Amino acid sequence: MSKGCFEVKATDLLGRVGRLYTKSGTLDTPALLPVVHPINQEIDLNTIKKIGFKAVMTNAYITLKRLGEEASKRGIHSIIGFDGIIMTDSGGYQVLEYGEVDVTPAKMALFQEEIGSDIAVVLDRPTGFSRNRAFAEQTVKETLKAAKETIEARKRGDTLWVGPIQGGLFTDLVAESARSTSTLPFDLHALGSPTEVMKSYHYRHLVKMIMAAKTNIPLNRPLHLFGAGHPLTMPLAVALGCDLFDSASYILYAKDDRYLTPTGTLKLDEIAELACPCPICTQHTLNEIRVSEKAERIRLLATHNLYLLQSELKQIRQAILDGRLWEIVALKARSHPRLWSAFQDLTKYTKLLEDGTPLYKRRAIYLYTKEDLRRPEVQRAVAKLRRDYHPKKKHTLIIFTLLSEERVLATPFCRRLLEEVEDHQLLYLSPIYRLIPMELTEIYPLSQTLYPSSLNNLPTQTLHNEAKRIIEEGGYKQIVAVCLNKHLHAKLATLAKRLNIKLLDYCRRGSKGQKEAAEEVLRTIHAAP
Amino acid sequence: MSKGCFEVKATDLLGRVGRLYTKSGTLDTPALLPVVHPINQEIDLNTIKKIGFKAVMTNAYITLKRLGEEASKRGIHSIIGFDGIIMTDSGGYQVLEYGEVDVTPAKMALFQEEIGSDIAVVLDRPTGFSRNRAFAEQTVKETLKAAKETIEARKRGDTLWVGPIQGGLFTDLVAESARSTSTLPFDLHALGSPTEVMKSYHYRHLVKMIMAAKTNIPLNRPLHLFGAGHPLTMPLAVALGCDLFDSASYILYAKDDRYLTPTGTLKLDEIAELACPCPICTQHTLNEIRVSEKAERIRLLATHNLYLLQSELKQIRQAILDGRLWEIVALKARSHPRLWSAFQDLTKYTKLLEDGTPLYKRRAIYLYTKEDLRRPEVQRAVAKLRRDYHPKKKHTLIIFTLLSEERVLATPFCRRLLEEVEDHQLLYLSPIYRLIPMELTEIYPLSQTLYPSSLNNLPTQTLHNEAKRIIEEGGYKQIVAVCLNKHLHAKLATLAKRLNIKLLDYCRRGSKGQKEAAEEVLRTIHAAP
Repeated sequence: MSKGCFEVKATDLLGRVGRLYTKSGTLDTPALLPVVHPINQEIDLNTIKKIGFKAVMTNAYITLKRLGEEASKRGIHSIIGFDGIIMTDSGGYQVLEYGEVDVTPAKMALFQEEIGSDIAVVLDRPTGFSRNRAFAEQTVKETLKAAKETIEARKRGDTLWVGPIQGGLFTDLVAESARSTSTLPFDLHALGSPTEVMKSYHYRHLVKMIMAAKTNIPLNRPLHLFGAGHPLTMPLAVALGCDLFDSASYILYAKDDRYLTPTGTLKLDEIAELACPCPICTQHTLNEIRVSEKAERIRLLATHNLYLLQSELKQIRQAILDGRLWEIVALKARSHPRLWSAFQDLTKYTKLLEDGTPLYKRRAIYLYTKEDLRRPEVQRAVAKLRRDYHPKKKHTLIIFTLLSEERVLATPFCRRLLEEVEDHQLLYLSPIYRLIPMELTEIYPLSQTLYPSSLNNLPTQTLHNEAKRIIEEGGYKQIVAVCLNKHLHAKLATLAKRLNIKLLDYCRRGSKGQKEAAEEVLRTIHAAP
Repeated sequence: MSKGCFEVKATDLLGRVGRLYTKSGTLDTPALLPVVHPINQEIDLNTIKKIGFKAVMTNAYITLKRLGEEASKRGIHSIIGFDGIIMTDSGGYQVLEYGEVDVTPAKMALFQEEIGSDIAVVLDRPTGFSRNRAFAEQTVKETLKAAKETIEARKRGDTLWVGPIQGGLFTDLVAESARSTSTLPFDLHALGSPTEVMKSYHYRHLVKMIMAAKTNIPLNRPLHLFGAGHPLTMPLAVALGCDLFDSASYILYAKDDRYLTPTGTLKLDEIAELACPCPICTQHTLNEIRVSEKAERIRLLATHNLYLLQSELKQIRQAILDGRLWEIVALKARSHPRLWSAFQDLTKYTKLLEDGTPLYKRRAIYLYTKEDLRRPEVQRAVAKLRRDYHPKKKHTLIIFTLLSEERVLATPFCRRLLEEVEDHQLLYLSPIYRLIPMELTEIYPLSQTLYPSSLNNLPTQTLHNEAKRIIEEGGYKQIVAVCLNKHLHAKLATLAKRLNIKLLDYCRRGSKGQKEAAEEVLRTIHAAP
């Protein structure tokens, strides 16, 4: 067990770009490990490597059954012919399929060490999709027991060990499994068996499962999601904190004549043309692929599928570095209505998502629909303004609605006012951030937010409450209200009356004559006693 | 001028998959024509061809200036070394840049015919981004004059001729230009100069411009959009009825070290890794591209950009064939907030979009946000139910809210009711389609619609009005209301009282015991006198 095998380079939401150090090299995360059969490889490992995969996953249990002790002599790298990083699963899948395997966790632990696995997995007992709680409890218990036996049995110091988390549909059991397993000295954790959840499009449950696991393991241990390497789910899962994926989907789909696209899978006979620019799709015509022999067709489709998956993963890494992960998750969520529901669920974890979201991004944030108002950047800024902003004492408060789509400081209205304003507090209504004091307008992301005019986050009551606090703290003698909506204006009028503050009303809509509008406001101020 | 040069194979919204017949071959549309310089080609035409482009655009005016009459002898195909389809622009761009050119439209018409252009463009007078209405009017007038002179001058019968539409920011002028130009015998039309509109992200104006042109030209003439080949705008423009694009962006971006992605452009130094699976990005490392000589870097970036554009275009064609164009436009619109606003504007043209949208699709439609409720399929079905559905006379109306997310006919509740129900009308509330009579549930797309549970299109007043009509026409003796919301229930109660119909109330929420719920409803019915 190595210490400090994982380094985080950048984060966004709960997603992170990291680096996993193994005895066979380093792996940039998030990463997808294609699943390869240890003996009958349908896709040449050199092809997989050429596509850019530095790590693969194979099955130690099948290796043991087929090659026996010979495997220990040859080593898994030589057996599958791959000099990169090899993660081995240890028969859990076979347990799920056949109910039982004829080896012990301790035996599988030693065997994985002997064959030189870089990342080894406890022989766990997957919960699968069972709706039987007693069974689920049993699998969690047995998985923990196997984890302990594995920790006991292992001998090498350079294998990374994965502690599996089970519980399936029962998220309280997933949480319990994560808590108990993570007390053991594992290097990584892996969440079991979302495959069936995904197959049936239960993405909302996937969100719950991942959060139950993620919030109960240490942040410095990468989280692997078993069997979940799919273009639709990876962005969501990464945003929730998953670092590693494995998937056999590329080959399973290929065997079923299915072609991965960025927004889902298409049957080969539904495709009109090969839209993908990968080497397979640019060097072959659709018809060539259709009429090729079964084995060759599988090879072509699987290779394309791998190119597509690799491309998706790189886009996710780029999105984290650009601070755009939210945008990519939301964009992808428009691939299936159930994925959109899952994205809506993700937006409810604002507090947790905020932890990984940088305070400053080099790029403006883009908002589209009401879901985006729950972006950590927005929620954080709104909360911070409410909590930390305390106005200086001034004579006059000028509170105004933006008169055009320009950046507030660039508007002729504000430029003119700022020339003269000294003892005045300028406060403007932003559809997204509610009330922004002019002196904070350049603070990220207040002026670095792009949104459609349809998006509006201005509930009158909340606005009024916040305005009230500022007005009370600022101790103003008069308020000049410019182009406020009538509800807010009425509320401010009542407040001003109660506090015995003079309220001057002024409205001149439209983008024309902004400078004149400013002059008029200045006259209004100067004319006041 | 050929007749019937354009065939439409499939449509969705105003978008269409078509085929344009030219003397140098057929072109599948929507298509993008890369712009190539007639003399100094930075990207080898064989590369462009290999990427799958069957047509390119080049500049006849520059050809005339640089090669003079020699060009007529050699022919444009030999000059640029391309045996595919060549469209020639004729100096309009130079007019826009320099105000004037020293040839007449008639001269340019004959020259384009002489050099063997397959698709030739009138030497027009582009409006550009001018805010001067008098100038815009002038350009429209001069463009029409040039169009007439071109029609007069042309001699060959096998050149396809493009009638340009100008007007720029003034959509009424665009409409007028489209109307007047389309009275002339052109084969195609082209809308001028959206480039600057796009550069400044004025996508909302682009929607208006295209609609002004599209609704004023005959449907059987393809519409070309000058200089608008960009991954972000093409889906939107295709949905609005554009069939052809040309673009020099692939090379202009490359010269500026910019890399196209499906969601926008990135500067080369902002990229962390090459996420694209195209041959350039899989055969080169990012660093190789970064450190290569300027000319080579331009070649690599431009080639990647072309692969990306071709891929995007093929995805659009596939989306039309799959009946998913709306979904792709909406998904892409999440690349920039201003594009989202433009998408929202597009949704207001439901009536026009409906014309091209097939009555039946092999695939379910996917809805996500309120904008999607304006999909032609949804609007059409809601209108059709309201207009064309007339209930048979029955004794009892059972009106119910869906008790689970299953397909309505598959729910135990409905299965049980349908066993016994004969003289009863079953009517259920669908969050999307409002009121659906059970006998119509299998009509497309009523049961072929997937949507998140957050989406709801059930305004109580509208529901009540529609229920009222059905109740009055059905002449029921009694109504059994199952799990209706209390507002609707109260309205129905008032209505039932007025019409002297017995209203039985029944509510049992949750998915459990649906069959029991059905039994109870049946008992309620049988117990009634």
